[in-house]
Amino acid sequence: MKRRQFVKTAGALPLAAGLAVQSSSAQARLLPEYKWKMVTTWPKNFPGLGMGANFLAKLINEMSGGRIRISIYGAHELVEPLDVFDAVADGKAEMGHGAAFYWQEKIPAAQFFAAVPFGLTAQEMNAWLYQGEGLELWHELYAEYGVIPWACGNTGVQMGGWFNREINSLADFQGLKMRIPGLGGQVLKQHGVEPVLLPGDEIFNALETGAIDAAEWAAPYNDVALGLHKVAKYYYYPGWHEPGTTIECLVNKQAMEALPKDLQAIVNSAMRVANQEMLAELTAKNNRVLQQLIKVHNVELRRFPDDVLRELKNSAETVIANTLQKDPRAIKIFESFDRFRQQAHAWHDVSELAFLQARDLV
Amino acid sequence: MKRRQFVKTAGALPLAAGLAVQSSSAQARLLPEYKWKMVTTWPKNFPGLGMGANFLAKLINEMSGGRIRISIYGAHELVEPLDVFDAVADGKAEMGHGAAFYWQEKIPAAQFFAAVPFGLTAQEMNAWLYQGEGLELWHELYAEYGVIPWACGNTGVQMGGWFNREINSLADFQGLKMRIPGLGGQVLKQHGVEPVLLPGDEIFNALETGAIDAAEWAAPYNDVALGLHKVAKYYYYPGWHEPGTTIECLVNKQAMEALPKDLQAIVNSAMRVANQEMLAELTAKNNRVLQQLIKVHNVELRRFPDDVLRELKNSAETVIANTLQKDPRAIKIFESFDRFRQQAHAWHDVSELAFLQARDLV
Repeated sequence: MKRRQFVKTAGALPLAAGLAVQSSSAQARLLPEYKWKMVTTWPKNFPGLGMGANFLAKLINEMSGGRIRISIYGAHELVEPLDVFDAVADGKAEMGHGAAFYWQEKIPAAQFFAAVPFGLTAQEMNAWLYQGEGLELWHELYAEYGVIPWACGNTGVQMGGWFNREINSLADFQGLKMRIPGLGGQVLKQHGVEPVLLPGDEIFNALETGAIDAAEWAAPYNDVALGLHKVAKYYYYPGWHEPGTTIECLVNKQAMEALPKDLQAIVNSAMRVANQEMLAELTAKNNRVLQQLIKVHNVELRRFPDDVLRELKNSAETVIANTLQKDPRAIKIFESFDRFRQQAHAWHDVSELAFLQARDLV
Repeated sequence: MKRRQFVKTAGALPLAAGLAVQSSSAQARLLPEYKWKMVTTWPKNFPGLGMGANFLAKLINEMSGGRIRISIYGAHELVEPLDVFDAVADGKAEMGHGAAFYWQEKIPAAQFFAAVPFGLTAQEMNAWLYQGEGLELWHELYAEYGVIPWACGNTGVQMGGWFNREINSLADFQGLKMRIPGLGGQVLKQHGVEPVLLPGDEIFNALETGAIDAAEWAAPYNDVALGLHKVAKYYYYPGWHEPGTTIECLVNKQAMEALPKDLQAIVNSAMRVANQEMLAELTAKNNRVLQQLIKVHNVELRRFPDDVLRELKNSAETVIANTLQKDPRAIKIFESFDRFRQQAHAWHDVSELAFLQARDLV
C-alpha cells in the first residue's frame, strides 16, 4: 500500500522545515525509473578507470533515490572499446566511459579534450572546461553525433614512461619501439621512435619479450598494477605528453533529454564529483606507490634532461599544427585552449609552481 | 489536479528505460519539502566566496527538484560572521558557509582544515579529504558540537601579499603592521610583524590611511576587487601561508539526518561540485586579472627571496608545534596531515612540479 502512504504524506504539504521523514524511498519508487546501460573502454573494475565508472553509476543511483539504475559493461562485453562512441551515438547504450583520444580517427579535434603535450594540468583543465569555453566547445563538437560529453575523471600529471636505456639526449630515442598513443606518440615519432598502440594488459608481455623497448601507461599506482617495474629499469618523469589526462563520459542526447530536470542536474553533478574523485584517488594512491617503487622495488627515477624537454616542446607545436589541418573544427577549439593555457601558465608560474618550489627549499 | 496526474503516472510502473516524461516537477512537489537557512561569514554575493554559497544553494535546489530550498543570509544579517559555527550548532540555521580558521579560538585544531603554511595545495587537500583520512577526522572533530563539515570551495595557491617596502631579507618584516590572519600571521609575528585581523572590506582604507603597512587577502581576482593595487606598490608571491585554502560548509547534524537518503547524497555531492567550481572559477579569473594587473595597472610582481622562504618554513614548524599544544585533538589530525603531505610532496615533485618546470623551458 505504498502508493496510498505516499498520497497521505503528500496531502500534508507544505511541510515545516526540518521535519523528520520516515522514509522517502517508498515515494521515490513511485516516480518513473530509467534503466541505462554504460559501455566502457576499460575492463570491468579496472584500477582507477573502471572503478571510476562504478563510482559514477553508484552516485547517480544514490542521488536519484534509485530512479536511475545503470548497468555497466566492461570492454568487449557489449561492444569493442573503440566502438563505445558509436554505441552511445546509436542509442545501443545510454552512456559510455572512456577518453576522447580514442575517437581520434573519427574526430581528430577530440584529442584536445583528453591529453595535449605541454598542455593543461588537471586544475587548469577543469578551469577551462567549467569556467572557460571548454565544456561548451566539447558539447558543440559532439552535437552532430547526438552525444553529450562530460569530464568524469582526471589522472593528474602522468609519468614519462619506462625505459631500459638512459635518455641523455634526443639521439637516445632513435630506433625505440615504444608504447605511447595519441599526440605524444606523434611527437616522439619526429625523433625516430616507432610509436606502438597497445591496450594496458598487453604492455607487460610486449616489454618482457622485447617486442617493444619502452612504454608509458600512466603513473605509479596504475603502472605497478601492470607490473611494468619488473621489466624496465628506468622510470622517467615528467609526463610532458599527458599533464592532466581527462576521462570522458558520454551520454546519448535523447536519453538525457528524456530525463526530468532534477535528474539531468543529478547526472551533470555526478560527472563532476566523479571527475574530482578520480583525481583524489590517483593522487593519494600514486603518493603511496611511489614510495614502494623507490624503497621496495629499487626503481631508478630519472628526469628527462632540459634539452630533451625543450625539443619535445617544439615538436609538440608542429604535431598540433598538423592536427589542426586534419580537422577544421579543431582550430576554434585549440585557439580557446591555447589562449587559456597562456594565461594559466603565467598565473600558475607565480602561484602553484612558485609554491611547490618554495616547499622544496631546505 | 496534479496529485491525480501523479498517481496515474505512478500506476504505470515499471516504465521502460528512456521513456520521455513530460514533467516531474508536479510529482516532486508532492514529496516533503525542507526549508533551510544558510548563514555565511561573507557579505551576500561577495566575489568568489559569497557567490560560492549561492552556487551551492542553487545546485541543491535543482538536484532535489525543489525539495530543499535554502535561504542565504549574508554576514551580519542573521548572525555575526564569527557566530556562524554556533548558529549551526544550535540549529538557528541548518547550514553555514565560511572557513575553519574562523573558529580557531573555540577549536584550534580546526585550522588544519583551512590553511596551513607550507601545507597542501588544492589538489593535495582534496586527495587527503576524500581519499586520505581528512574528511573523517574533520567530521570527528566537529561531532561533539552536532555539526557536520564539508569542503565547499578552494582558492588554490594565494599571493603572498601587498607591500610598500621591498622584502629582501627577514629584517624587512621588522615593525610592519600587516593584515594577515591565522597560522601565517603567527609565523610572521616571529619575525617582528604585528599581525592585524581585518575583514576584507576594511583593508583598503587601512592601507590608504597608513593604519597598516601591508596586507594579504587572496589572489589577483579578489584583491583587485578590493582595490589593493591602488594603495600598495609591490605584489609578492608565492602565498606560502595559504597554498590551498579550503572553504567550509557546515550542516546541522539533526537537520541532515532528517533528510531521506537520496537528499543526503545530493547535499554531499553538491558540496563537492561547489568545491571544484570555486577552484575553477578562481583559477580562470586569476588568470585574466593577473594580466590586467601587469599590463594595465603596472603592478610590480616580486618573489620572496629563497632565504626568506626558508626561514618562514622553519618558523611555520614552530608555530604548528605550538598549536598542537593548545588543542590535544590537533595532534592526531596533524599527524595524518603531515604524513600525507610528505608523500604528496615527493610525488608532486616528479609530477606537477616537474611538469610546470618543463612547460617553462624556452
